[in-house]
Formats: sequence, structure tokens, C-alpha cells
Amino acid sequence: MEKISLDELSRKIGKPWSPVDVMFVNDSVIRIAKVEGEFVWHKHDNGDEVFLVFEGEFTIQTKEKNFNLKKGECILVPKGVLHCPKADSPATMLVFELKDTKQYGD
Amino acid sequence: MEKISLDELSRKIGKPWSPVDVMFVNDSVIRIAKVEGEFVWHKHDNGDEVFLVFEGEFTIQTKEKNFNLKKGECILVPKGVLHCPKADSPATMLVFELKDTKQYGD
Repeated sequence: MEKISLDELSRKIGKPWSPVDVMFVNDSVIRIAKVEGEFVWHKHDNGDEVFLVFEGEFTIQTKEKNFNLKKGECILVPKGVLHCPKADSPATMLVFELKDTKQYGD
Repeated sequence: MEKISLDELSRKIGKPWSPVDVMFVNDSVIRIAKVEGEFVWHKHDNGDEVFLVFEGEFTIQTKEKNFNLKKGECILVPKGVLHCPKADSPATMLVFELKDTKQYGD
């Protein structure tokens, strides 16, 4: 067992949209990623995805609505729902999803 | 879909060691709990458990070692490992675990 500092991990990440695995827990994974600008529209057919703002703020766009999230806020994107994260300024997100979830969707 | 503020949830929690479900994601759950004082020694036979410090600091005691965690630090307690959370002052934790994980263990 070993503790992990999300702040330290966060400082090591350079590029946005390049998630790093923090830890695997049961069949899921916790990832951390820098975000800046707009990602691509995609969906995950087989698993829900949770986004949690660790630092800064960003938006989870869906075809229905945009969700502006600030530090300490989180949202669940159910499987099958098209979404596209977007950050007007640099931010850091935590992601909780199944291990085999592909970043660019199915 | 609806965003959730962990700060708001946290403010609504009164008693320590009374976790609140934040959201269910796939076969897992994210919970939030106030912690203060010492919990009880226990283990979970069927699932790993992740503790993340949301506010303050606390310790995850194991029979091998004590892990002092500050805000933004996390640790995975593998299934089967005896552990006991302890907080010298009020703190708030996020917990990631399987939905059917029992708070007092198996």
C-alpha cells in the first residue's frame, strides 16, 4: 500500500487530454488529466463516466445541455450519452470509469 | 444528468462516520463522509476501497503501517486488508468502492 498525492501527479502532467492512471480499484480506474480547449465528441457504449473538477473549472457539453463545473463539482455521464469536455482555461479533472473505457469512445 | 457539488453535500452531513452516497457509477459508488475520532477495525473480503481526502486530514491505520493523508491524497486499501480510519480533527473523505460494500466490513 502506498498513498498517492493528486497534487504531485497533477504537477507532472504536461499536455492536456493525456490522462494518467492514478489507481485501479476493482474493475474501475481513477484517472487524472489536464484539460484545456475542446476535446472531441464521443460516447462510451459500455460504461458510465464520472468527471470531478480537481482544479479550475470546465464544461461537460452534451447535445441536451452544457454543464459548467467548478472545483469540487462532479457529474455522471451515463453510458451511451454523447459528450465533449471543454475548458476555456487550464483545469484538472479526475475521471472514474471502467478500466477498459477508451478515451475517444466507441 | 445533474451536476453535484461535493462542498454542498459535505455541508449537509452532520454526524461523522455516516457516509452519504454521492453517485452510483457502473458497479461502484462514490460516497462522502465526515470523519472524526476513530472508526472500527474491519476489512472487506470482496472489494478494494479507495479513500481520498476532500477536506482536512486523517489516517488510515493498517496492521502494517499508518498512512497519514492530507487534502488531495488518496490510498487504496486492497480487499481483505484490515484497516481503521482515524481523524484527530474533523475531516471529510471521499470513498470509492463497490456498491455492495458494507461500512463495517465482512
